Amino acid sequence: MNVLIVYAHPERESLNGTLKDLAVDTLTDEGHQVQVSDLYSMKWKAVLDEEDFPERMNKELFNPILEQLNAVKKGAIPQDIKEEMDKVLWADLIIFQFPIWWSNFPAILKGWVDRVFYNGFAFNLAEMQLYGNGPLKGKKAMLSFTTGAPRELYTDEGPHGEIEVLIKYFNHLLFEFVGMEALPYFAIFGPGDMTEEEREVELDRFQEIIKNV
Amino acid sequence: MNVLIVYAHPERESLNGTLKDLAVDTLTDEGHQVQVSDLYSMKWKAVLDEEDFPERMNKELFNPILEQLNAVKKGAIPQDIKEEMDKVLWADLIIFQFPIWWSNFPAILKGWVDRVFYNGFAFNLAEMQLYGNGPLKGKKAMLSFTTGAPRELYTDEGPHGEIEVLIKYFNHLLFEFVGMEALPYFAIFGPGDMTEEEREVELDRFQEIIKNV
Repeated sequence: MNVLIVYAHPERESLNGTLKDLAVDTLTDEGHQVQVSDLYSMKWKAVLDEEDFPERMNKELFNPILEQLNAVKKGAIPQDIKEEMDKVLWADLIIFQFPIWWSNFPAILKGWVDRVFYNGFAFNLAEMQLYGNGPLKGKKAMLSFTTGAPRELYTDEGPHGEIEVLIKYFNHLLFEFVGMEALPYFAIFGPGDMTEEEREVELDRFQEIIKNV
Repeated sequence: MNVLIVYAHPERESLNGTLKDLAVDTLTDEGHQVQVSDLYSMKWKAVLDEEDFPERMNKELFNPILEQLNAVKKGAIPQDIKEEMDKVLWADLIIFQFPIWWSNFPAILKGWVDRVFYNGFAFNLAEMQLYGNGPLKGKKAMLSFTTGAPRELYTDEGPHGEIEVLIKYFNHLLFEFVGMEALPYFAIFGPGDMTEEEREVELDRFQEIIKNV
């Protein structure tokens, strides 16, 4: 299987970095092919803007959704985006590895989605290619993240609300929207308060999931 | 009242740009003071990274949350972030004006939150200053956004799910987390399919809300 890991953490030695390395090693040992988009190391451009569209259809008014479709048709896609699209097409499974910041992706990862998941590539509004007809149908996707707060704060009774509801938005409005199948998420809650032993248990749990992915 | 509008759209002539201008004019006419952070025009740096921390507490391992607290204590905050913090402190009300992309902020706006809402400024984990005790208590915040899809797609029965559930995450885990009061959101759903007349109705509706904010 071909696996793309889109990884977003500014510190290589972070727990997210460890999880990314563990996934690469485990998947490789199992005979899978792996590519990593290490967004911080790549200095990934996070912001979708006019510079992304060298051959504008409408030079007066910038409408990203319409310009994306036009750029796909013309093949006028910036190299950094094209490379990520090629990785997405190559992959059978995409794993997003990141820390939850403000109940969502870090901006650099949000910007990977904003800039790579083009209208005309990951979905097509004009031709109603989305959800069951999404262009990325047949691929799988999985969230793997860390949170600052422990699990008990992410419940219906807890201050942050049930995490499953939040996850549903990622899985449905991102992965399923483009036609991918969302695998169950993996999360390590509140690693900052864990002992070394507790972290090891979590890493083992992750490795088991990755082995059987 | 002092109002900060944090505005994120790459096209000045977009509906989001029009809403921003209308808010500025209406608030000014009503006698309020207004500042705008036009993130695209400012070429706002979206990505929180090590460069944001010139005086690192721990030069070996980069932990953003801990470094933020240290930077606040040392007063070692980059100028672009400092200016936004000053606007936040000045403001009685913050309006976020943006298009929903992938059920969240555009990356440039996500990066404004990631980089400005410091531990030690907008919340303080060590001293449990969050929610009811959040440092930005007494301030109000309001989401004003546009969506690609019409309202009927954002319902419990619709493909995108009920928008109120999504909004709750912004209002609770962002605004209320730092102590702010969340005002009801304003949204224009599916403006791309509207007639000029229907858009005018929406703009009037927005102006009425802003007048009475």
